[in-house]
Amino acid sequence: MTAPATTSPDLDFIFQPRSIAIAGVSARENASFGGGGFVQALQEVGFGGPIYLIHPTAPAIRGLKCYPSLRDIPWDVDYVISSVSAKYVPDLLEDCIEKGTVRVLHLFTAGFTETGEEGRADMERTVVARAREAGIRVIGPNCMGLYVPGSRLAMMPGQIPEAGPVGMVSQSGMNAGEFVRYATPRGVRCSKVISFGNGADLKAADFFDYLADDADTETIVAYIEGIQDGPRLAQAIRRAGEAKPLVILKSGRTEAGSRAASSHTASLAGSVEVFDGLCKQARALRVESLDELVDMAVTFQFVKRLHGPNICVVGAGGGASVMAADDLDVVDLKLPTLLPETQEALAKVTNEAGTSIRNPIDTMSVFEDHGFEATLTPVGQAPNVDAILYHTSFGFGFASRMGDQRGRAERQADGLARAQEQSGKPVVVAIRPSLTPEALEQANYFQEQCYRRGIATYPSIARAGNALSKLLQWQALQD
Amino acid sequence: MTAPATTSPDLDFIFQPRSIAIAGVSARENASFGGGGFVQALQEVGFGGPIYLIHPTAPAIRGLKCYPSLRDIPWDVDYVISSVSAKYVPDLLEDCIEKGTVRVLHLFTAGFTETGEEGRADMERTVVARAREAGIRVIGPNCMGLYVPGSRLAMMPGQIPEAGPVGMVSQSGMNAGEFVRYATPRGVRCSKVISFGNGADLKAADFFDYLADDADTETIVAYIEGIQDGPRLAQAIRRAGEAKPLVILKSGRTEAGSRAASSHTASLAGSVEVFDGLCKQARALRVESLDELVDMAVTFQFVKRLHGPNICVVGAGGGASVMAADDLDVVDLKLPTLLPETQEALAKVTNEAGTSIRNPIDTMSVFEDHGFEATLTPVGQAPNVDAILYHTSFGFGFASRMGDQRGRAERQADGLARAQEQSGKPVVVAIRPSLTPEALEQANYFQEQCYRRGIATYPSIARAGNALSKLLQWQALQD
Repeated sequence: MTAPATTSPDLDFIFQPRSIAIAGVSARENASFGGGGFVQALQEVGFGGPIYLIHPTAPAIRGLKCYPSLRDIPWDVDYVISSVSAKYVPDLLEDCIEKGTVRVLHLFTAGFTETGEEGRADMERTVVARAREAGIRVIGPNCMGLYVPGSRLAMMPGQIPEAGPVGMVSQSGMNAGEFVRYATPRGVRCSKVISFGNGADLKAADFFDYLADDADTETIVAYIEGIQDGPRLAQAIRRAGEAKPLVILKSGRTEAGSRAASSHTASLAGSVEVFDGLCKQARALRVESLDELVDMAVTFQFVKRLHGPNICVVGAGGGASVMAADDLDVVDLKLPTLLPETQEALAKVTNEAGTSIRNPIDTMSVFEDHGFEATLTPVGQAPNVDAILYHTSFGFGFASRMGDQRGRAERQADGLARAQEQSGKPVVVAIRPSLTPEALEQANYFQEQCYRRGIATYPSIARAGNALSKLLQWQALQD
Repeated sequence: MTAPATTSPDLDFIFQPRSIAIAGVSARENASFGGGGFVQALQEVGFGGPIYLIHPTAPAIRGLKCYPSLRDIPWDVDYVISSVSAKYVPDLLEDCIEKGTVRVLHLFTAGFTETGEEGRADMERTVVARAREAGIRVIGPNCMGLYVPGSRLAMMPGQIPEAGPVGMVSQSGMNAGEFVRYATPRGVRCSKVISFGNGADLKAADFFDYLADDADTETIVAYIEGIQDGPRLAQAIRRAGEAKPLVILKSGRTEAGSRAASSHTASLAGSVEVFDGLCKQARALRVESLDELVDMAVTFQFVKRLHGPNICVVGAGGGASVMAADDLDVVDLKLPTLLPETQEALAKVTNEAGTSIRNPIDTMSVFEDHGFEATLTPVGQAPNVDAILYHTSFGFGFASRMGDQRGRAERQADGLARAQEQSGKPVVVAIRPSLTPEALEQANYFQEQCYRRGIATYPSIARAGNALSKLLQWQALQD
């Protein structure tokens, strides 16, 4: 890894640990919640340095040697993950301090301020103060920590080592994990994903600042439940939003949501109006669901820029086409009637009755290689079209009974990528939900062929339309 | 089949054919679009009567004997499906008339009024007039026809013979097929599904009237693109809405949607305001997407009635719980704080820090049989809770590494059904999307265990909440 050019280099060490110790791993080999989950995640992602386990009695777990305490490890350790109960955290911290080489303590451990008990909030403050005094930075408590593919650091099993341009700041470990889990199969690749939980020491503002300067991060997405240190957070969000595309999902908008946020990460949800104003100042895009957050990560990574609201919809199936027109209208996109010359070119390909070549284009010719290309090419050249939205599904109807599904998927993705390149306009794909394992396997394969060729994919026409519309909204904010 | 008690018995014969002839089947055995698709659909669903194929030269296709023309079939035929080109339809109709036993002609054939050509519109009018004169009713043209599981009649491959309480009227064959395809794995079972296309003879109004009186149909869902014969349609929709729950998806709201509707089923989309007023008079529920139409079919079949807006959310994962609160708030549902006695009962089950027992309930105890029941029981008894929403996912995290997934799914479904029965309150399940074939297999198995026990399932917390909210809206319309 080359060192990124950053103006806040003081946090780089957090994302580049050389050796990790994990306290609180169950001796049950298959326990994968808690400490065992981190072991499995790090082994799967291929962490390159040593992983030391701390266990009072077990000699080894998952092939890794165990030590009764951190002080018994005869080598340097710079990064410690705590999965022990909250009451043991002060002792673990003293061990970290005595060890002398520890720079980061990631407290997966919960049971602090978020419980609502004053004694536990006190304990959290004491731990952080003592750590800071000793030069140790704390991530958490009550969080999943870091997924940094470039450093082969993962927070959950199944996370891959392939890195990319999307950085994430998340108050919730679950939502950080869900974001990665849903975004990865659609081709989103991450620079740094940070779950910071209660944010007792390192806070959202620290991570926004870091990602704003991080050369590996081109887009920042964030999940925020509550606001800590409002003025500093506001400043960090403004900086991040000026530096690169910033998409924020703010939950806890409601009384029940606030109650859940408070018991979840000990945070005050804050006023919706204040947060809305802050995002506007920061030119950040607000979204309302994790699905939208994933969709916008896909959009900023693959689509990047859209010149206008005029979409041409291509696919087979009249009902879907009619609904598509309404779905796009709801989000202020347009389906312009294609010009006579475009329609003429299309008429040569699809002359069956019952199809439409005006827009939406509803044609069976998408099922043939030649027909697909002969449909996409004139649409790509149409002066009144800004983007092409192709919709399809798997395991159903005509195409499901054509042989060589994989070859077909590859040729379709080739055709879409060629259309995107030749037209210079975004080509996006809506793959409607699959209902059987076989269909999902085909859909996943097609999806991968698409994103490997730079094509954005969405799980429905409505979500594709919403994402393109939000991209236009974001562009308007920058003007 | 017992004869249903109906006041419009004159259309019963349409749904109970005794023998079917199909014109326009490709000699290619694997051709499954067009006539071949109907053959496959009828064979798969197990149509009990004879199926005759009409082909100029082939001796047999798919194991069925072929005849050069309808007149060459030496047995009675009462139902004819046409997949020949539009220009051959007049001759086919003459054959039907000469045959003397034909009562229904289903024109899958497209290429009539929807092309926008006056000559083809004329031909449609001529065909219908000639058929009516001879006592033959026409379904279509440009439609998929009927799915009637009780009569072992299907419009698309993959449709099952199990019948149930949901009837559908759809202008689009694609959307009728998509509705069945998405609703079936969630336990929705159908009485009659009708795709009527251009509605040249039998129209939406005829089918609303029929389903309003049909004893096998408890709920009617409809997909309407445009309005034909407004006053009669208005009356039929009012009758249907008075007789049973009626859910309508109206597309073609926009200029582009209208254009697509016109080329799709030759219909004028009509004014949104007029249609809105009509639905209000009919006490019908309007929805905006096919997903919502499916969700409401699930809701009316399984949930039926909800006493109030107070929902208790149960699941594992703090981020999901916080988002759940917001998702439900958006659709005007409430997450009441659980009473002290309910919280006390819950505290005995889940005393880990970092979990919440106030509502949403965020607890790992749902992963143990005893913990699951001990969580659901006090919530079911809570006086300030009207329904329980349980959310889960597959292929990820803790549960994905527990053995015996099928047994676990069955025990969880048992627990949910017991809670629903003992509490007398709806228990609904949100299964978040699966990303791998293996996860989808597990999710589908759990989903089936749920609906077999009378539990409604939805693909997200937001969609479950939206459906429950719309059920309350529909109930309010009936007061």
